Amino acid sequence: MTELIYEHPLNEKVRTYLRVEHLFNQLQQLLALENEWQQQAYFNTLFDLIEILDRNDIRPDLIKDVERCETALVAWSSHPSVSDDKLQVMLQQAVKLQSDLLRSTKFIASLKQDKFLSPLRQRFSIPGGACYFDMPQLQYWIHLDIDYRQQMANEWYQQLSLVQQAIDFVLSFIRERGHFEPIIADNGFYQSNTDKYELLRLSYPIDAGVYPTVSGNKYRYAIRFMQLCDETGRNNSTDSQQFKLACC
Amino acid sequence: MTELIYEHPLNEKVRTYLRVEHLFNQLQQLLALENEWQQQAYFNTLFDLIEILDRNDIRPDLIKDVERCETALVAWSSHPSVSDDKLQVMLQQAVKLQSDLLRSTKFIASLKQDKFLSPLRQRFSIPGGACYFDMPQLQYWIHLDIDYRQQMANEWYQQLSLVQQAIDFVLSFIRERGHFEPIIADNGFYQSNTDKYELLRLSYPIDAGVYPTVSGNKYRYAIRFMQLCDETGRNNSTDSQQFKLACC
Repeated sequence: MTELIYEHPLNEKVRTYLRVEHLFNQLQQLLALENEWQQQAYFNTLFDLIEILDRNDIRPDLIKDVERCETALVAWSSHPSVSDDKLQVMLQQAVKLQSDLLRSTKFIASLKQDKFLSPLRQRFSIPGGACYFDMPQLQYWIHLDIDYRQQMANEWYQQLSLVQQAIDFVLSFIRERGHFEPIIADNGFYQSNTDKYELLRLSYPIDAGVYPTVSGNKYRYAIRFMQLCDETGRNNSTDSQQFKLACC
Repeated sequence: MTELIYEHPLNEKVRTYLRVEHLFNQLQQLLALENEWQQQAYFNTLFDLIEILDRNDIRPDLIKDVERCETALVAWSSHPSVSDDKLQVMLQQAVKLQSDLLRSTKFIASLKQDKFLSPLRQRFSIPGGACYFDMPQLQYWIHLDIDYRQQMANEWYQQLSLVQQAIDFVLSFIRERGHFEPIIADNGFYQSNTDKYELLRLSYPIDAGVYPTVSGNKYRYAIRFMQLCDETGRNNSTDSQQFKLACC
């Protein structure tokens, strides 16, 4: 049975991390620039990423979180029964990330000043604004040699690679803190205390015909299973639902 | 030599028509929902289209323009030397479009009220807002059977088919009003009077390494050829440039 993993952040910081991770995944998929619409989606995603990183200064949070990972790794590696090459690799990675982050200035400064991207960015922020009559340079660019375009698209993407590495590193750490436990939601409902968790991960079978919604703050969270809207607008599921939950 | 056609609208009405046409072309390409990013791009485009049609009531303009086309077609068809089956087909199309448009109420009313689309639309309007943690229903939907999803995507698209038909009809009429004439832009620059034109169409060779920009109002327009930005930020082309221009 196919299981889907739904992740719900319990604070603003992890919320932003997940947003950025999602956009990076999308950007990576679009780098091939295979057709006109994929190119439009590439720019849309790149500009969303710039916007998010511009509004939220995630650098201090990332530095703190990488440091926290490093401290944990050092503690584990000094334990006599632990001797793991992978752990050493991760420790080196943490040290490098931390020094790179400390040396980095604003992540998106050069992308924001890029003479080709800036005028496009303004247009893409308007709904339906990505029309060629306002951006003849984009229509022209899209018909240039594919290798040249892919190289440019890659260069813009690479300018954010430090953020991507740090986000991937920190999120994989957060995810590994929790372990999936089987749970039954009576009448499609389950609630508990958050206990300083930052992220809830739910694994649920897609065949059951319901999906989970989570509401929560730093003290409590509630999970409710729903059906896709029907004609009457009622969509709470009242069936008991088995799922697995990892609190991270 | 590959020629690109760049179109520049000279009034707000044609501007909106071109925007809507562009989004429809995009939506059509995305209907296959082949992968996750294509689905995200589908919703992005659909919501942009709803937004544009919500902000701009193009129905009266479309009715007026279809009527204008019809009058022209009737005049041509009554001319003794003209006897064209294609013209008769177009005339029937115009009559049908006009009566459909007159009978139609707001184009997007049911899409705006759709219980599945509404909450997604709010999220997609935020940069980077299309994350699954805010839309578990979308993550769930994206993993449902592809035939079911394509059918839904098609149904939403079909609800706008009258707008698309009318836009295509009117724009093809506007485009046929002009004929390409060869022109040389001395020092990369050309200007003239608009003479009640609504749309400029420029055909230019992509190999020349320059692209056209147009500024214009209802009295005059100016065309300037540019190069993609270099390091110094100077990008006006001062070379003479051959191109073709159709004033519609």
